[in-house]
Formats: sequence, structure tokens, C-alpha cells
Amino acid sequence: MSAAEPRLTAPGRRTRERIVETAAELMFRKGVAGTSIPDIQQAAGVSASQIYHYFKDKQGLVRAVIEYRTEQALVHQRPLLEALDSFEGLRAWSDSVVAIQDGRGCAGGCEVGSLASELAESCPETRTALAASFERWEEPIRVGLVRLRGRGKLRADADPHDLATVLLAALQGGLLLTQVRRTSHPLRTALDGALAYIATFAT
Amino acid sequence: MSAAEPRLTAPGRRTRERIVETAAELMFRKGVAGTSIPDIQQAAGVSASQIYHYFKDKQGLVRAVIEYRTEQALVHQRPLLEALDSFEGLRAWSDSVVAIQDGRGCAGGCEVGSLASELAESCPETRTALAASFERWEEPIRVGLVRLRGRGKLRADADPHDLATVLLAALQGGLLLTQVRRTSHPLRTALDGALAYIATFAT
Repeated sequence: MSAAEPRLTAPGRRTRERIVETAAELMFRKGVAGTSIPDIQQAAGVSASQIYHYFKDKQGLVRAVIEYRTEQALVHQRPLLEALDSFEGLRAWSDSVVAIQDGRGCAGGCEVGSLASELAESCPETRTALAASFERWEEPIRVGLVRLRGRGKLRADADPHDLATVLLAALQGGLLLTQVRRTSHPLRTALDGALAYIATFAT
Repeated sequence: MSAAEPRLTAPGRRTRERIVETAAELMFRKGVAGTSIPDIQQAAGVSASQIYHYFKDKQGLVRAVIEYRTEQALVHQRPLLEALDSFEGLRAWSDSVVAIQDGRGCAGGCEVGSLASELAESCPETRTALAASFERWEEPIRVGLVRLRGRGKLRADADPHDLATVLLAALQGGLLLTQVRRTSHPLRTALDGALAYIATFAT
């Protein structure tokens, strides 16, 4: 989304990507405030002027990290997110989200949710980037539910917009509780509750 | 919960309280990593040695902040949290949570949730303190639901433990989305969904 990106040469693009990936990893482990530009310089093997060239300032880099994390998660889950137009698809996605947390010992939480919590009050541009990220998550859920309703599987009074918000909130809240409690039970329970609620609108 | 607390004199207790309140305010605005001991010293008008005397290290102070935020929120909401044993009580609590966010322009999110997201990976003692804080939130919800079931208003197959987790996750996820989107709609929608799901177990 960086305005500079289209004009980059291939090596420039690779350098930019390396900076973003390194920053994302450090910010995930140590928080945004706990990650300095010198930390990123050292870990990515670049100069401060390169970082400022590509991102203008730390907030610019943070927004690139938000976009990178969002893109990464969406690409990884794309096949599941494109199949949210059936109750089986919703269940498969939910199972996969729980399995991912189990696979990492329930540590780390949601990469984007953690950034959101830390950065929501930092500056309007960053908050807007976070809102856009959550919208990109909510959209495939909503699209799936619209299709489900369109095929007559959900009642006409089911609101795909609100039901998608219920499911996304269950995901975020469940991930936070799972991270703190180090068991996927809260995530599983929260998603099960949201899916069961959606199922109350089944025809 | 500090082992030192019972032995404090009245002025000592007041100093300790001032440090915790100041640290809580700074950490809420700038994050834990963005709040240094010198920042707290200056804002609270105390010396570094006073801070280390009461809290041993920054992690100790952070745990005192978690406890303070939890206590503060629970005291403030006590009358509502003690009345979660009816559908009207659940609704009243939910309305009040939404009204609080509306009252602050949907900024800030959950004080404990924000700390949790930033600190869940910091050290085991702090993670344990966060888990204890969420447990203190979940407990009155669970107790209300147990009573509701005991009075025959919820079916016997309703699990108050899981339903309380569903509601707490909806609260946390809804607060995060509300903070990022600057509208209480996601919080209201998430809580409505959780309450409607609980109501599916009504007799």
C-alpha cells in the first residue's frame, strides 16, 4: 500500500520486504514500543537511512507490518476463507484456527490483534490501517454468510454483517483468552458459541 | 497482593498507591514498553529507590497495575456483576459496558485486555496475573449463570463455565473491534450475539 512500492527495483523490493519481515518478527516478540529502529537495522542488516527511505518513519513501517501480517494470514487461510458459505466450511475454518493455536502451544495470540491492541491509540493513520485489516478479515466471513443466506440455508432475517462481527469478535476474544490461559479451550468455546448462534438462523 | 503491603504504614500505603495509579495511567496511554521507570518517577514525584522498594522491579509494578485495574473495574461494576442471575441482569450489564465505551468515544479499549495483549508473552508470573484477572471477571458471570440454571431458568445441559467464556470472549473481542473502529456497534453486536446464544438455553 506504500506509494513508493510500485517504483521499486527488484533488489529494492527485496530489501523493503526484508525490513518488513524483520520488523514484524521483532514487534511480535517484543511489542512495537519495545522494538527500536536500531534493533531492526541490526537484525535486518540495513542502515537507518534505508529504513527511512522506504517507510519515512516508524509509524510508516508499523503500517507496512500491519499490512504484511494481514496479507500473510489471509493468504495462508485463503482456501478455508473462500469456503465459508456452508456450515461445514465455517466449522472447518474454526477447527483450523484452533489447530494453529494448539500447534504453537497457544502462545503469541493473534499477530494483528496484538498490534491492534498496542497501536489503536497511537495515530489516526495507524488506527485506520488496523480497521482496514479487520475489515479484510470480516469480509470473507460476511461474503460466506451472504452466500449461505442466498442459497436459502440462512433465514432472511439473518444479518450477515452482524453475524460476521459476532464471529470475528469471538475469534479475537477467544485468541486473547487462549494466549493468556495457554489452552485453546476458550478459543474453541467462543467459536463454538458463535457458530451455534449462527446456526440458530438456519432454515 | 504484594507480600510487602500488609506491613506498610499509612503514608507508605499512600505512596505505593500513588505509584500504581500513576503507572496505570501512563501504561494505559503509552503502553507498558513505552513507560519507563523515570517516566513514572517524574509523574508520581517519587524516587527510583521508592519504586524499587515497593515493587522490586518493573515486572512487579506491572503486576500491581494489573491487580489495580482489575480491582477498579470490578468495584465499579459490582452491583451489575452481582445481578447476572437473570436475563434482565445480563442485559443491564451489557448495556452498561456499551454505554461506558460510548461515554469515552470508544477510545482506550479494555484496560486489562490491552495489558494482556502486550504482556502475555513477557514472563510467566505476569501471564499468571493476567489469567487471574480474567478469572476474576469470568467468575461473577459464571456464578450468575449457575444461579440462573439453579432457578430453572436455564436448561440442565447449559454449561455455565462455557457460556461465561463465550460472553467474556465476546466482551474482549467486541471491545477491541470497538476501539479500532471507534464505534460501539461491534461491542453491542458481539454481546447481543452472546446473550442471544445464552438465551437459546432458556427453559
